Amino acid sequence: MLLAVQQFIPEFGAVEANRRRLIAALEATPDAERIDLVVLPELIVTGYRFRDRAELERLAEPIPGPTTEAFGALARRLDLHLVIGLAERAGERVYNSAALVGPTGVVGRYRKVHLFADERRIFDAGSEPWPVFRVGDVPVGIMICFDWIYPEAARTLALHGAWVIAVPANLVLPLCQPALVTRSIENRVFTALANRAGADRRQGLEPLRFTGRSRIVGPDGEVLVEVGCEDEAVCTVEIDPALAADKTLASGNEIFAERRPDLYGALTEPPGAGGSGE
Amino acid sequence: MLLAVQQFIPEFGAVEANRRRLIAALEATPDAERIDLVVLPELIVTGYRFRDRAELERLAEPIPGPTTEAFGALARRLDLHLVIGLAERAGERVYNSAALVGPTGVVGRYRKVHLFADERRIFDAGSEPWPVFRVGDVPVGIMICFDWIYPEAARTLALHGAWVIAVPANLVLPLCQPALVTRSIENRVFTALANRAGADRRQGLEPLRFTGRSRIVGPDGEVLVEVGCEDEAVCTVEIDPALAADKTLASGNEIFAERRPDLYGALTEPPGAGGSGE
Repeated sequence: MLLAVQQFIPEFGAVEANRRRLIAALEATPDAERIDLVVLPELIVTGYRFRDRAELERLAEPIPGPTTEAFGALARRLDLHLVIGLAERAGERVYNSAALVGPTGVVGRYRKVHLFADERRIFDAGSEPWPVFRVGDVPVGIMICFDWIYPEAARTLALHGAWVIAVPANLVLPLCQPALVTRSIENRVFTALANRAGADRRQGLEPLRFTGRSRIVGPDGEVLVEVGCEDEAVCTVEIDPALAADKTLASGNEIFAERRPDLYGALTEPPGAGGSGE
Repeated sequence: MLLAVQQFIPEFGAVEANRRRLIAALEATPDAERIDLVVLPELIVTGYRFRDRAELERLAEPIPGPTTEAFGALARRLDLHLVIGLAERAGERVYNSAALVGPTGVVGRYRKVHLFADERRIFDAGSEPWPVFRVGDVPVGIMICFDWIYPEAARTLALHGAWVIAVPANLVLPLCQPALVTRSIENRVFTALANRAGADRRQGLEPLRFTGRSRIVGPDGEVLVEVGCEDEAVCTVEIDPALAADKTLASGNEIFAERRPDLYGALTEPPGAGGSGE
Protein backbone atom coordinates (compact mmCIF):
# COMPACT_ATOMS: atom_id res chain seq x y z
CA MET A 1 0.00 0.00 0.00
CA LEU A 2 1.31 3.44 -0.90
CA LEU A 3 0.19 5.58 2.03
CA ALA A 4 0.36 9.38 1.95
CA VAL A 5 -0.24 12.36 4.21
CA GLN A 6 -0.83 15.85 2.91
CA GLN A 7 0.28 18.83 4.99
CA PHE A 8 -1.35 22.08 3.95
CA ILE A 9 -1.93 25.78 4.76
CA PRO A 10 -5.47 26.76 3.75
CA GLU A 11 -6.72 30.32 3.40
CA PHE A 12 -9.47 30.73 5.97
CA GLY A 13 -12.93 30.54 4.43
CA ALA A 14 -11.72 30.19 0.83
CA VAL A 15 -13.30 26.78 0.46
CA GLU A 16 -13.19 26.49 -3.31
CA ALA A 17 -9.67 27.82 -3.65
CA ASN A 18 -8.42 25.52 -0.89
CA ARG A 19 -10.05 22.52 -2.52
CA ARG A 20 -8.49 23.44 -5.86
CA ARG A 21 -5.03 23.84 -4.37
CA LEU A 22 -5.28 20.63 -2.33
CA ILE A 23 -6.28 18.69 -5.43
CA ALA A 24 -3.66 20.34 -7.61
CA ALA A 25 -0.95 19.46 -5.09
CA LEU A 26 -2.09 15.84 -4.99
CA GLU A 27 -2.19 15.63 -8.79
CA ALA A 28 1.30 17.10 -8.97
CA THR A 29 2.73 14.49 -6.60
CA PRO A 30 5.21 12.42 -8.63
CA ASP A 31 3.73 9.02 -7.78
CA ALA A 32 0.12 10.27 -7.48
CA GLU A 33 -1.35 7.45 -9.54
CA ARG A 34 0.32 4.89 -7.28
CA ILE A 35 -1.12 6.29 -4.02
CA ASP A 36 -3.71 4.03 -2.38
CA LEU A 37 -4.72 6.22 0.55
CA VAL A 38 -3.97 9.83 1.37
CA VAL A 39 -4.86 11.52 4.66
CA LEU A 40 -5.63 15.26 4.66
CA PRO A 41 -5.70 17.49 7.75
CA GLU A 42 -8.70 18.41 9.91
CA LEU A 43 -11.10 21.14 8.69
CA ILE A 44 -8.80 21.57 5.74
CA VAL A 45 -11.09 23.19 3.17
CA THR A 46 -12.37 25.88 5.56
CA GLY A 47 -9.53 26.58 7.97
CA TYR A 48 -9.84 26.19 11.71
CA ARG A 49 -10.36 29.51 13.44
CA PHE A 50 -14.13 30.11 13.16
CA ARG A 51 -15.32 33.33 14.69
CA ASP A 52 -18.52 31.78 16.03
CA ARG A 53 -21.16 29.15 15.41
CA ALA A 54 -22.89 31.29 12.77
CA GLU A 55 -19.72 31.48 10.69
CA LEU A 56 -19.16 27.76 11.13
CA GLU A 57 -22.70 26.98 10.00
CA ARG A 58 -22.22 29.13 6.92
CA LEU A 59 -19.02 27.31 5.91
CA ALA A 60 -20.04 23.78 6.89
CA GLU A 61 -21.46 21.39 4.32
CA PRO A 62 -23.15 18.01 4.26
CA ILE A 63 -21.46 14.65 3.64
CA PRO A 64 -21.84 13.82 0.78
CA GLY A 65 -21.54 17.40 -0.46
CA PRO A 66 -19.44 19.66 -2.67
CA THR A 67 -16.13 18.75 -1.01
CA THR A 68 -16.61 14.99 -1.05
CA GLU A 69 -17.81 15.29 -4.67
CA ALA A 70 -14.73 17.23 -5.73
CA PHE A 71 -12.42 14.74 -4.02
CA GLY A 72 -14.55 11.85 -5.28
CA ALA A 73 -13.79 12.96 -8.84
CA LEU A 74 -10.08 13.04 -7.96
CA ALA A 75 -10.39 9.60 -6.36
CA ARG A 76 -11.82 8.28 -9.64
CA ARG A 77 -9.12 9.93 -11.76
CA LEU A 78 -6.28 8.61 -9.59
CA ASP A 79 -7.99 5.47 -8.28
CA LEU A 80 -7.24 6.21 -4.64
CA HIS A 81 -8.98 6.85 -1.32
CA LEU A 82 -8.81 10.03 0.76
CA VAL A 83 -9.56 10.85 4.38
CA ILE A 84 -10.58 14.53 4.46
CA GLY A 85 -11.26 16.66 7.53
CA LEU A 86 -14.22 18.99 7.08
CA ALA A 87 -16.98 20.82 8.93
CA GLU A 88 -20.10 18.70 8.47
CA ARG A 89 -23.58 20.17 8.58
CA ALA A 90 -26.24 17.56 9.45
CA GLY A 91 -29.60 19.23 10.02
CA GLU A 92 -29.23 21.52 13.03
CA ARG A 93 -25.94 19.98 13.98
CA VAL A 94 -22.40 20.75 12.91
CA TYR A 95 -19.63 18.23 13.45
CA ASN A 96 -15.88 18.32 13.14
CA SER A 97 -15.80 15.33 10.80
CA ALA A 98 -13.62 13.33 8.50
CA ALA A 99 -14.94 11.65 5.37
CA LEU A 100 -13.45 8.62 3.69
CA VAL A 101 -13.90 9.12 -0.06
CA GLY A 102 -13.02 6.67 -2.83
CA PRO A 103 -13.72 6.17 -6.52
CA THR A 104 -17.32 5.23 -5.73
CA GLY A 105 -17.85 8.31 -3.54
CA VAL A 106 -18.26 8.54 0.23
CA VAL A 107 -17.33 5.28 1.98
CA GLY A 108 -17.95 6.55 5.51
CA ARG A 109 -17.35 9.33 7.99
CA TYR A 110 -16.31 9.96 11.56
CA ARG A 111 -17.57 12.79 13.78
CA LYS A 112 -14.95 13.97 16.27
CA VAL A 113 -15.75 12.82 19.79
CA HIS A 114 -13.14 14.67 21.85
CA LEU A 115 -13.40 18.36 20.98
CA PHE A 116 -10.50 20.67 21.79
CA ALA A 117 -10.74 24.08 23.49
CA ASP A 118 -13.14 26.45 21.70
CA GLU A 119 -14.36 23.68 19.40
CA ARG A 120 -16.61 22.71 22.31
CA ARG A 121 -18.35 26.08 22.00
CA ILE A 122 -19.19 25.87 18.30
CA PHE A 123 -19.22 22.19 17.26
CA ASP A 124 -21.47 19.34 18.29
CA ALA A 125 -19.53 16.36 19.62
CA GLY A 126 -19.78 13.03 17.86
CA SER A 127 -21.53 10.29 19.78
CA GLU A 128 -20.35 7.14 18.00
CA PRO A 129 -17.08 5.30 18.55
CA TRP A 130 -14.21 5.46 16.08
CA PRO A 131 -15.05 3.57 12.88
CA VAL A 132 -13.05 1.14 10.75
CA PHE A 133 -13.54 0.97 6.97
CA ARG A 134 -11.97 -1.07 4.19
CA VAL A 135 -9.64 0.46 1.64
CA GLY A 136 -9.06 -2.50 -0.66
CA ASP A 137 -8.16 -5.28 1.79
CA VAL A 138 -6.87 -2.90 4.42
CA PRO A 139 -8.93 -1.98 7.49
CA VAL A 140 -8.47 1.76 8.03
CA GLY A 141 -9.63 3.58 11.16
CA ILE A 142 -10.17 7.29 11.68
CA MET A 143 -9.68 9.54 14.68
CA ILE A 144 -9.25 13.33 14.66
CA CYS A 145 -6.62 15.51 16.34
CA PHE A 146 -7.36 15.81 20.09
CA ASP A 147 -8.59 12.21 20.14
CA TRP A 148 -4.85 11.42 20.29
CA ILE A 149 -4.69 12.27 24.01
CA TYR A 150 -7.30 9.63 24.81
CA PRO A 151 -5.63 6.22 24.48
CA GLU A 152 -9.13 4.75 24.26
CA ALA A 153 -9.60 6.16 20.74
CA ALA A 154 -6.69 4.44 18.99
CA ARG A 155 -7.22 1.36 21.18
CA THR A 156 -10.85 1.06 20.08
CA LEU A 157 -9.80 1.28 16.44
CA ALA A 158 -7.06 -1.32 16.82
CA LEU A 159 -9.32 -3.70 18.75
CA HIS A 160 -11.87 -3.31 15.99
CA GLY A 161 -9.23 -4.43 13.54
CA ALA A 162 -7.72 -1.23 12.08
CA TRP A 163 -4.24 -1.73 10.62
CA VAL A 164 -3.84 1.91 9.63
CA ILE A 165 -5.15 4.78 11.74
CA ALA A 166 -5.70 8.02 9.82
CA VAL A 167 -5.36 11.12 12.00
CA PRO A 168 -6.45 14.39 10.37
CA ALA A 169 -5.29 17.17 12.71
CA ASN A 170 -4.84 20.89 13.31
CA LEU A 171 -2.36 20.60 16.15
CA VAL A 172 -1.36 23.75 18.00
CA LEU A 173 0.84 21.85 20.48
CA PRO A 174 3.83 19.63 19.60
CA LEU A 175 2.75 16.81 21.95
CA CYS A 176 0.81 14.58 19.59
CA GLN A 177 3.62 13.84 17.14
CA PRO A 178 5.76 11.91 19.67
CA ALA A 179 2.65 10.45 21.35
CA LEU A 180 1.68 8.80 18.06
CA VAL A 181 4.82 6.70 18.37
CA THR A 182 3.36 5.34 21.61
CA ARG A 183 -0.04 4.85 19.97
CA SER A 184 1.60 2.85 17.19
CA ILE A 185 3.68 0.71 19.55
CA GLU A 186 0.96 -0.05 22.08
CA ASN A 187 -1.45 -1.08 19.29
CA ARG A 188 1.07 -2.32 16.70
CA VAL A 189 -0.60 -0.28 13.98
CA PHE A 190 0.42 2.28 11.38
CA THR A 191 -0.59 5.84 12.28
CA ALA A 192 -0.79 8.51 9.58
CA LEU A 193 -0.93 12.05 10.94
CA ALA A 194 -1.88 14.79 8.47
CA ASN A 195 -1.38 18.07 10.27
CA ARG A 196 -1.73 21.70 9.31
CA ALA A 197 1.15 24.07 9.02
CA GLY A 198 1.08 27.88 9.00
CA ALA A 199 -1.37 29.99 10.99
CA ASP A 200 -4.98 31.16 10.96
CA ARG A 201 -5.05 34.95 11.27
CA ARG A 202 -8.51 36.46 11.75
CA GLN A 203 -9.13 40.10 12.52
CA GLY A 204 -9.76 40.65 16.23
CA LEU A 205 -8.71 37.12 17.18
CA GLU A 206 -5.33 35.92 18.33
CA PRO A 207 -3.52 34.13 15.52
CA LEU A 208 -3.30 30.37 15.90
CA ARG A 209 -0.14 28.63 14.72
CA PHE A 210 -0.10 24.96 13.79
CA THR A 211 2.81 22.64 14.37
CA GLY A 212 3.14 20.65 11.13
CA ARG A 213 5.43 17.61 11.30
CA SER A 214 2.89 15.34 9.65
CA ARG A 215 4.21 11.81 9.92
CA ILE A 216 3.60 8.17 9.27
CA VAL A 217 4.66 5.79 12.06
CA GLY A 218 5.03 2.01 11.77
CA PRO A 219 3.84 -0.66 14.23
CA ASP A 220 7.26 -0.79 15.90
CA GLY A 221 7.17 2.94 16.51
CA GLU A 222 9.61 3.88 13.77
CA VAL A 223 8.85 7.22 12.08
CA LEU A 224 8.71 6.17 8.43
CA VAL A 225 8.37 9.64 6.98
CA GLU A 226 7.93 13.15 8.35
CA VAL A 227 7.31 16.61 6.91
CA GLY A 228 8.82 19.80 8.39
CA CYS A 229 6.95 22.38 10.45
CA GLU A 230 6.30 25.04 7.84
CA ASP A 231 5.89 23.17 4.57
CA GLU A 232 3.02 22.28 2.40
CA ALA A 233 3.81 18.77 1.21
CA VAL A 234 2.48 15.41 0.18
CA CYS A 235 4.69 12.66 1.49
CA THR A 236 4.32 9.02 0.75
CA VAL A 237 5.67 5.74 2.02
CA GLU A 238 5.20 2.18 0.86
CA ILE A 239 3.94 0.07 3.74
CA ASP A 240 3.04 -3.58 4.26
CA PRO A 241 -0.20 -2.97 6.17
CA ALA A 242 -0.56 -6.64 7.15
CA LEU A 243 2.38 -6.18 9.53
CA ALA A 244 -0.23 -4.58 11.79
CA ALA A 245 -2.25 -7.80 11.84
CA ASP A 246 0.46 -9.51 13.86
CA LYS A 247 0.44 -8.30 17.46
CA THR A 248 3.47 -10.41 18.44
CA LEU A 249 6.52 -8.63 19.80
CA ALA A 250 10.07 -9.92 19.39
CA SER A 251 9.74 -11.09 23.01
CA GLY A 252 6.99 -13.51 21.98
CA ASN A 253 4.32 -11.48 23.75
CA GLU A 254 1.08 -11.36 21.80
CA ILE A 255 0.05 -8.04 23.20
CA PHE A 256 -3.61 -8.19 22.21
CA ALA A 257 -4.21 -11.83 23.20
CA GLU A 258 -2.48 -11.08 26.52
CA ARG A 259 -4.68 -8.10 27.35
CA ARG A 260 -6.62 -8.49 30.61
CA PRO A 261 -9.97 -6.79 29.94
CA ASP A 262 -11.29 -8.35 33.16
CA LEU A 263 -8.94 -5.96 35.00
CA TYR A 264 -9.68 -2.83 32.92
CA GLY A 265 -13.15 -2.13 34.31
CA ALA A 266 -12.21 1.34 35.57
CA LEU A 267 -11.94 2.54 31.98
CA THR A 268 -15.60 2.11 31.17
CA GLU A 269 -17.08 3.18 34.51
CA PRO A 270 -19.26 6.29 34.26
CA PRO A 271 -17.50 9.42 35.58
CA GLY A 272 -17.78 9.74 39.34
CA ALA A 273 -18.51 6.04 39.79
CA GLY A 274 -16.47 3.89 42.10
CA GLY A 275 -12.86 4.68 42.67
CA SER A 276 -12.27 7.79 40.54
CA GLY A 277 -11.93 9.40 43.90
CA GLU A 278 -9.15 11.96 44.23
CA MET B 1 7.31 15.87 48.03
CA LEU B 2 10.89 14.85 47.38
CA LEU B 3 10.57 11.99 44.91
CA ALA B 4 13.48 9.71 44.03
CA VAL B 5 14.33 6.85 41.70
CA GLN B 6 17.22 4.50 42.28
CA GLN B 7 18.98 2.94 39.31
CA PHE B 8 21.05 -0.11 40.21
CA ILE B 9 23.10 -3.06 38.93
CA PRO B 10 22.58 -6.07 41.20
CA GLU B 11 24.75 -9.16 41.28
CA PHE B 12 22.51 -12.04 40.29
CA GLY B 13 21.40 -14.10 43.27
CA ALA B 14 23.43 -12.16 45.84
CA VAL B 15 20.31 -11.07 47.70
CA GLU B 16 21.92 -9.93 50.93
CA ALA B 17 24.78 -8.10 49.25
CA ASN B 18 22.40 -6.37 46.85
CA ARG B 19 20.17 -5.27 49.71
CA ARG B 20 23.15 -3.93 51.60
CA ARG B 21 24.45 -1.99 48.61
CA LEU B 22 21.00 -0.61 47.72
CA ILE B 23 20.54 0.61 51.29
CA ALA B 24 24.05 2.01 51.54
CA ALA B 25 23.55 3.98 48.32
CA LEU B 26 20.30 5.41 49.60
CA GLU B 27 21.84 6.36 52.94
CA ALA B 28 24.72 8.04 51.13
CA THR B 29 22.40 10.18 49.04
CA PRO B 30 23.05 13.81 50.07
CA ASP B 31 19.42 14.67 50.81
CA ALA B 32 18.44 11.16 51.97
CA GLU B 33 16.60 12.33 55.07
CA ARG B 34 14.48 14.69 52.96
CA ILE B 35 13.27 11.98 50.53
CA ASP B 36 9.58 11.13 50.87
CA LEU B 37 9.33 8.32 48.33
CA VAL B 38 11.97 6.38 46.44
CA VAL B 39 11.24 3.89 43.68
CA LEU B 40 13.62 0.93 43.18
CA PRO B 41 13.77 -1.25 40.07
CA GLU B 42 11.97 -4.55 39.41
CA LEU B 43 13.40 -7.76 40.95
CA ILE B 44 16.21 -5.67 42.29
CA VAL B 45 17.47 -7.78 45.18
CA THR B 46 17.71 -10.99 43.13
CA GLY B 47 18.49 -9.91 39.58
CA TYR B 48 16.28 -10.75 36.62
CA ARG B 49 17.66 -13.67 34.62
CA PHE B 50 16.41 -16.74 36.47
CA ARG B 51 17.47 -20.03 34.99
CA ASP B 52 14.15 -21.69 35.72
CA ARG B 53 11.22 -21.85 38.10
CA ALA B 54 13.18 -23.84 40.67
CA GLU B 55 15.85 -21.16 40.91
CA LEU B 56 13.18 -18.47 41.13
CA GLU B 57 11.42 -20.33 43.95
CA ARG B 58 14.68 -20.62 45.83
CA LEU B 59 15.37 -16.88 45.62
CA ALA B 60 11.82 -15.60 46.07
CA GLU B 61 10.56 -14.53 49.50
CA PRO B 62 7.27 -13.61 51.12
CA ILE B 63 5.92 -10.07 51.62
CA PRO B 64 6.45 -9.17 54.43
CA GLY B 65 9.80 -10.93 54.52
CA PRO B 66 13.53 -10.31 54.89
CA THR B 67 13.71 -7.68 52.15
CA THR B 68 10.73 -5.64 53.26
CA GLU B 69 12.05 -5.88 56.83
CA ALA B 70 15.48 -4.59 55.85
CA PHE B 71 13.98 -1.72 53.89
CA GLY B 72 11.40 -1.12 56.64
CA ALA B 73 14.25 -0.46 59.04
CA LEU B 74 15.72 2.00 56.54
CA ALA B 75 12.29 3.61 56.12
CA ARG B 76 12.14 4.15 59.89
CA ARG B 77 15.67 5.57 60.04
CA LEU B 78 15.07 8.01 57.16
CA ASP B 79 11.30 8.45 57.57
CA LEU B 80 10.51 7.67 53.95
CA HIS B 81 8.59 5.21 51.78
CA LEU B 82 10.03 2.84 49.20
CA VAL B 83 8.59 0.92 46.28
CA ILE B 84 10.76 -2.19 45.84
CA GLY B 85 10.54 -4.74 43.05
CA LEU B 86 11.03 -8.31 44.29
CA ALA B 87 10.16 -11.94 43.58
CA GLU B 88 7.29 -12.78 45.94
CA ARG B 89 6.62 -16.31 47.13
CA ALA B 90 3.02 -16.82 48.25
CA GLY B 91 2.32 -20.48 48.95
CA GLU B 92 2.77 -22.36 45.69
CA ARG B 93 2.82 -19.20 43.67
CA VAL B 94 5.60 -16.81 42.75
CA TYR B 95 4.85 -13.30 41.57
CA ASN B 96 6.91 -10.52 40.05
CA SER B 97 5.83 -8.02 42.70
CA ALA B 98 6.50 -4.60 44.09
CA ALA B 99 6.08 -3.78 47.77
CA LEU B 100 5.37 -0.35 49.21
CA VAL B 101 7.27 -0.14 52.50
CA GLY B 102 7.20 2.72 55.00
CA PRO B 103 8.21 3.37 58.60
CA THR B 104 5.38 1.13 59.84
CA GLY B 105 6.36 -1.73 57.51
CA VAL B 106 4.57 -3.06 54.43
CA VAL B 107 1.80 -0.70 53.26
CA GLY B 108 0.79 -2.79 50.25
CA ARG B 109 1.97 -4.69 47.22
CA TYR B 110 1.26 -5.16 43.52
CA ARG B 111 1.68 -8.40 41.58
CA LYS B 112 2.68 -7.80 37.95
CA VAL B 113 -0.21 -8.48 35.60
CA HIS B 114 1.44 -8.22 32.18
CA LEU B 115 4.43 -10.55 32.20
CA PHE B 116 7.18 -10.06 29.61
CA ALA B 117 8.76 -12.77 27.48
CA ASP B 118 10.20 -15.65 29.58
CA GLU B 119 8.64 -14.26 32.76
CA ARG B 120 5.47 -15.98 31.55
CA ARG B 121 7.25 -19.32 31.85
CA ILE B 122 8.42 -18.94 35.45
CA PHE B 123 6.19 -16.40 37.21
CA ASP B 124 2.50 -16.49 38.04
CA ALA B 125 0.63 -13.48 36.70
CA GLY B 126 -1.13 -11.13 39.10
CA SER B 127 -4.90 -11.12 38.92
CA GLU B 128 -5.79 -7.84 40.61
CA PRO B 129 -5.79 -4.39 39.02
CA TRP B 130 -3.14 -1.82 39.73
CA PRO B 131 -3.43 -0.48 43.30
CA VAL B 132 -3.24 3.04 44.73
CA PHE B 133 -1.84 3.66 48.23
CA ARG B 134 -1.29 6.77 50.34
CA VAL B 135 2.17 8.12 51.05
CA GLY B 136 1.35 10.94 53.42
CA ASP B 137 -1.39 12.81 51.57
CA VAL B 138 -0.24 11.63 48.16
CA PRO B 139 -2.00 8.81 46.32
CA VAL B 140 0.71 6.64 44.77
CA GLY B 141 0.03 3.91 42.21
CA ILE B 142 2.25 1.03 41.17
CA MET B 143 2.72 -0.74 37.87
CA ILE B 144 5.73 -2.83 36.80
CA CYS B 145 7.84 -2.67 33.63
CA PHE B 146 5.93 -4.27 30.72
CA ASP B 147 2.65 -2.91 32.09
CA TRP B 148 3.83 0.32 30.37
CA ILE B 149 2.79 -0.96 26.94
CA TYR B 150 -0.80 -1.40 28.09
CA PRO B 151 -2.35 2.08 28.38
CA GLU B 152 -5.03 0.49 30.55
CA ALA B 153 -2.56 0.07 33.44
CA ALA B 154 -1.60 3.70 33.96
CA ARG B 155 -5.15 4.76 33.07
CA THR B 156 -6.61 2.53 35.78
CA LEU B 157 -4.22 4.02 38.33
CA ALA B 158 -5.00 7.60 37.32
CA LEU B 159 -8.76 6.99 37.29
CA HIS B 160 -8.41 5.52 40.77
CA GLY B 161 -6.79 8.75 41.86
CA ALA B 162 -3.03 8.16 41.66
CA TRP B 163 -1.01 11.36 41.38
CA VAL B 164 2.34 9.59 41.19
CA ILE B 165 2.82 6.30 39.34
CA ALA B 166 5.83 4.29 40.48
CA VAL B 167 7.25 2.06 37.75
CA PRO B 168 9.90 -0.44 38.88
CA ALA B 169 11.40 -1.89 35.71
CA ASN B 170 14.06 -4.08 34.12
CA LEU B 171 13.73 -2.73 30.59
CA VAL B 172 15.68 -4.42 27.83
CA LEU B 173 14.19 -2.17 25.12
CA PRO B 174 14.43 1.64 24.96
CA LEU B 175 10.72 2.10 24.14
CA CYS B 176 9.25 2.63 27.58
CA GLN B 177 11.22 5.73 28.52
CA PRO B 178 9.65 7.97 25.80
CA ALA B 179 6.28 6.21 26.18
CA LEU B 180 6.14 7.30 29.82
CA VAL B 181 5.99 10.88 28.57
CA THR B 182 2.75 9.92 26.81
CA ARG B 183 1.50 8.10 29.92
CA SER B 184 2.12 11.23 31.99
CA ILE B 185 0.46 13.57 29.49
CA GLU B 186 -2.62 11.46 28.80
CA ASN B 187 -3.23 10.99 32.54
CA ARG B 188 -1.70 14.22 33.84
CA VAL B 189 0.27 12.35 36.47
CA PHE B 190 3.86 12.07 37.60
CA THR B 191 5.57 8.87 36.49
CA ALA B 192 8.70 7.64 38.27
CA LEU B 193 10.60 4.98 36.36
CA ALA B 194 13.31 3.10 38.28
CA ASN B 195 15.13 0.97 35.74
CA ARG B 196 18.05 -1.38 35.89
CA ALA B 197 21.36 -0.71 34.24
CA GLY B 198 24.11 -3.17 33.42
CA ALA B 199 23.56 -6.77 32.37
CA ASP B 200 22.67 -10.15 33.82
CA ARG B 201 25.28 -12.68 32.72
CA ARG B 202 24.48 -16.29 33.58
CA GLN B 203 26.49 -19.24 32.39
CA GLY B 204 24.86 -20.93 29.40
CA LEU B 205 22.33 -18.14 28.91
CA GLU B 206 22.57 -15.16 26.62
CA PRO B 207 23.43 -12.04 28.57
CA LEU B 208 20.59 -9.57 29.01
CA ARG B 209 21.42 -5.87 28.92
CA PHE B 210 19.17 -3.28 30.55
CA THR B 211 18.61 0.20 29.23
CA GLY B 212 18.82 2.45 32.32
CA ARG B 213 17.64 6.03 31.79
CA SER B 214 15.49 5.98 34.90
CA ARG B 215 13.42 9.14 34.88
CA ILE B 216 10.73 11.17 36.55
CA VAL B 217 8.20 12.80 34.23
CA GLY B 218 5.72 15.55 35.17
CA PRO B 219 2.03 15.79 34.27
CA ASP B 220 2.81 18.02 31.26
CA GLY B 221 5.23 15.42 29.92
CA GLU B 222 8.39 17.25 30.89
CA VAL B 223 11.28 14.97 31.91
CA LEU B 224 12.15 16.39 35.34
CA VAL B 225 15.21 14.27 35.93
CA GLU B 226 16.95 11.39 34.16
CA VAL B 227 19.87 9.07 34.86
CA GLY B 228 22.25 7.80 32.17
CA CYS B 229 22.29 4.30 30.70
CA GLU B 230 25.16 2.74 32.61
CA ASP B 231 25.11 4.38 36.02
CA GLU B 232 24.06 3.35 39.45
CA ALA B 233 22.43 6.44 40.88
CA VAL B 234 19.78 7.84 43.16
CA CYS B 235 18.25 10.91 41.63
CA THR B 236 15.71 13.14 43.28
CA VAL B 237 13.36 15.92 42.33
CA GLU B 238 11.06 18.12 44.37
CA ILE B 239 7.53 17.86 42.98
CA ASP B 240 4.17 19.39 43.79
CA PRO B 241 2.14 16.19 43.56
CA ALA B 242 -1.20 18.02 43.76
CA LEU B 243 -0.54 19.32 40.23
CA ALA B 244 -1.71 15.87 39.17
CA ALA B 245 -5.08 16.42 40.82
CA ASP B 246 -5.98 19.04 38.21
CA LYS B 247 -6.79 17.40 34.89
CA THR B 248 -7.33 20.74 33.12
CA LEU B 249 -5.16 21.55 30.10
CA ALA B 250 -4.19 25.08 29.10
CA SER B 251 -6.90 24.73 26.44
CA GLY B 252 -9.54 24.51 29.15
CA ASN B 253 -10.18 20.83 28.44
CA GLU B 254 -10.76 18.81 31.58
CA ILE B 255 -9.49 15.62 30.11
CA PHE B 256 -10.91 13.25 32.71
CA ALA B 257 -14.35 14.88 33.00
CA GLU B 258 -14.51 14.92 29.19
CA ARG B 259 -13.78 11.22 28.81
CA ARG B 260 -16.54 9.27 27.05
CA PRO B 261 -16.62 5.88 28.80
CA ASP B 262 -19.90 5.15 27.04
CA LEU B 263 -17.85 4.94 23.82
CA TYR B 264 -14.94 2.89 25.20
CA GLY B 265 -16.78 -0.43 25.49
CA ALA B 266 -14.36 -2.24 23.16
CA LEU B 267 -11.65 -1.97 25.81
CA THR B 268 -13.37 -4.21 28.32
CA GLU B 269 -14.87 -6.75 25.94
CA PRO B 270 -13.54 -10.28 26.46
CA PRO B 271 -11.00 -11.29 23.79
CA GLY B 272 -12.65 -12.59 20.65
CA ALA B 273 -15.95 -10.89 21.45
CA GLY B 274 -17.61 -8.56 18.99
CA GLY B 275 -15.49 -6.54 16.67
CA SER B 276 -11.93 -7.60 17.52
CA GLY B 277 -12.11 -9.24 14.18
CA GLU B 278 -9.12 -8.71 11.91
